[in-house]
Amino acid sequence: MVDRPVHGGNLAWAAEIAGCSPDMLVDFSASINPLGPPKSVWAAIQNALPALGHYPDPAYTALRHALGTYHNLSPDWVLPGNGAAELITWAARDMASLADATAYIPAPAFNDYQRACQSFGVAVAPWLLTPDSWILESDVDLRPEALIAASSPRASCLINNPHNPTGHVFSLDHLRPLLDHFSLVVVDEAFMDFLPPTEAPSLVPWVERYPNLVVVRSLTKFYSLPGLRLGYALGHPDRLQRWQQWRDPWPVNTLAGAAAMAAVQDTAFQHQTWNWLPPTRQALRAGLAAMPGLTPLPSAANYLLVRADAPVPPLQQALLQHSQVFIRDCLSFDALGDHYFRVAVRSEVENERLLTALAQAKDL
Amino acid sequence: MVDRPVHGGNLAWAAEIAGCSPDMLVDFSASINPLGPPKSVWAAIQNALPALGHYPDPAYTALRHALGTYHNLSPDWVLPGNGAAELITWAARDMASLADATAYIPAPAFNDYQRACQSFGVAVAPWLLTPDSWILESDVDLRPEALIAASSPRASCLINNPHNPTGHVFSLDHLRPLLDHFSLVVVDEAFMDFLPPTEAPSLVPWVERYPNLVVVRSLTKFYSLPGLRLGYALGHPDRLQRWQQWRDPWPVNTLAGAAAMAAVQDTAFQHQTWNWLPPTRQALRAGLAAMPGLTPLPSAANYLLVRADAPVPPLQQALLQHSQVFIRDCLSFDALGDHYFRVAVRSEVENERLLTALAQAKDL
Repeated sequence: MVDRPVHGGNLAWAAEIAGCSPDMLVDFSASINPLGPPKSVWAAIQNALPALGHYPDPAYTALRHALGTYHNLSPDWVLPGNGAAELITWAARDMASLADATAYIPAPAFNDYQRACQSFGVAVAPWLLTPDSWILESDVDLRPEALIAASSPRASCLINNPHNPTGHVFSLDHLRPLLDHFSLVVVDEAFMDFLPPTEAPSLVPWVERYPNLVVVRSLTKFYSLPGLRLGYALGHPDRLQRWQQWRDPWPVNTLAGAAAMAAVQDTAFQHQTWNWLPPTRQALRAGLAAMPGLTPLPSAANYLLVRADAPVPPLQQALLQHSQVFIRDCLSFDALGDHYFRVAVRSEVENERLLTALAQAKDL
Repeated sequence: MVDRPVHGGNLAWAAEIAGCSPDMLVDFSASINPLGPPKSVWAAIQNALPALGHYPDPAYTALRHALGTYHNLSPDWVLPGNGAAELITWAARDMASLADATAYIPAPAFNDYQRACQSFGVAVAPWLLTPDSWILESDVDLRPEALIAASSPRASCLINNPHNPTGHVFSLDHLRPLLDHFSLVVVDEAFMDFLPPTEAPSLVPWVERYPNLVVVRSLTKFYSLPGLRLGYALGHPDRLQRWQQWRDPWPVNTLAGAAAMAAVQDTAFQHQTWNWLPPTRQALRAGLAAMPGLTPLPSAANYLLVRADAPVPPLQQALLQHSQVFIRDCLSFDALGDHYFRVAVRSEVENERLLTALAQAKDL
């Protein structure tokens, strides 16, 4: 028996319960853009295959230049990584070097933050988000003032924006006090690409102003390539050079680098996704809200957190066994417990399949 | 101007000096098997492309099973990594946790060992290899007894076998005392695949016997895929689980995993390489030895270290500018200085081109 996964996307575990091959599952557990990967990115990957016979350029000059240009930053403010997850590990190491090796992390949060902090002896101080703040579509209750009053300015803060798993977006006004207070603020913007630039409260434009800020981005979710591993950090060159010395010279594989350079230039795909997401998410949310016992929360990202009146694990199992539909339980988000699940927003057809499967499972 | 590289294979730097595109260079600086990648591995990569839309299995169950089967070990003795270089980083972190955070490392050695040790505050104690020991094709002068008498058993040892850049092979008899002495022995067998199993003094069969032993392997060189990043560590499950907790859950990309599983099963490619290497290396060595002022050293690996009477950097530059041939200077191997260079054994045609280019450069 495969262990219950602590991350989304663990298809081997789900397929065993469903009694089918992993390919047959409809995977709502990993929040991946169903429109991708873009054709431009496939072409870039195919073109780069012959280059696998050479080492990647350890300076990643072309890649850092492309990502820097995309964000209006010079290349030395960019550090590519083997997925955003690799960079969170080094962020935690950086936190360990502060006078107060404590990281304030919203609860609930992606549980690998905790793993990264433990890895380097950083104490995790949960910053409890109250469910009301998500449900009311307001961040009044997030109280950065209370957090700041109760924490040392020598400590650090690690936050996801949009927040995972709630889909809540922290506004710039709520983030600025954190930057003015903490010695290091790491903002994981893994899902920020899903918001059109005019609506996205990204901290990237502040990177040059705040040397204590690092923004971590991922190309995995928006461009649908979680198997290829590509993320990057944006921050002060001195800090990124220190991180670079901690790790080996070739963390990013050649295909990931080529994919990234094509992806950030594919404005057509970006617009397609921004046009697709809001109505599709709204329809899925409405469908979930119409089901007795389920309360989907508002979300600015490509996933929805759903509160269920009944415990989720039996529902998850029934969906797998009867419909090969895989939803993400939230047991690994300690603040949530067993009455929440998360679903990705997928294609209209697949979202309908989820709603049908849920209706059937609740009739069982 | 691109900085002088500290690793082989930095084609951007070389192409700038040669005044051509990187594709036009004949790269003797990176020690990559010219027969690969095998067709079986290309097919596996192509088949795995559709799976890029899913996260890799964080347990890497199938990959660890395939690598374990190849080495007669159970899967929990296998930890795949993002290239051997990633695993050397965690090895250094492990060394830092010993009562004596000192690593004894042969000098010369791959300079990323030093970077990894510095990254975690491990003191590097060079274990100076005398040139005679390589040239005489004997390891009498490596004196593990002297090293052992002068070092604490609470410290660690990090050794390359076959040794890079000399191509020398340490015998099992010379390695056993190190295992009986040090608290942790890490053996980087990145080039061991180039020796047929009957001639290879690999420590893999001793992994279960010595809990203080970790063997690190690479698939980059033998299967000609340095751009894809795949290595693995073999060691005690408790140790590997500790390493696993230090890093993110998805260090190995999906294509690298698929390539690895195909590669270790391709016995035809393995035999082809074992048949090709010895006579080709011997011919290249003879050609180099016939040139006045050059002394190629004996090597069991797919590269040759060459001592030059004149300083190497002007020769390296002349080869790039006149023949687009790129040899590896050894400036980054501190114990060697500027009178050595390293060349990969490539195809017969390419090796001839190197010899011709060297003859022309010496006439200039």
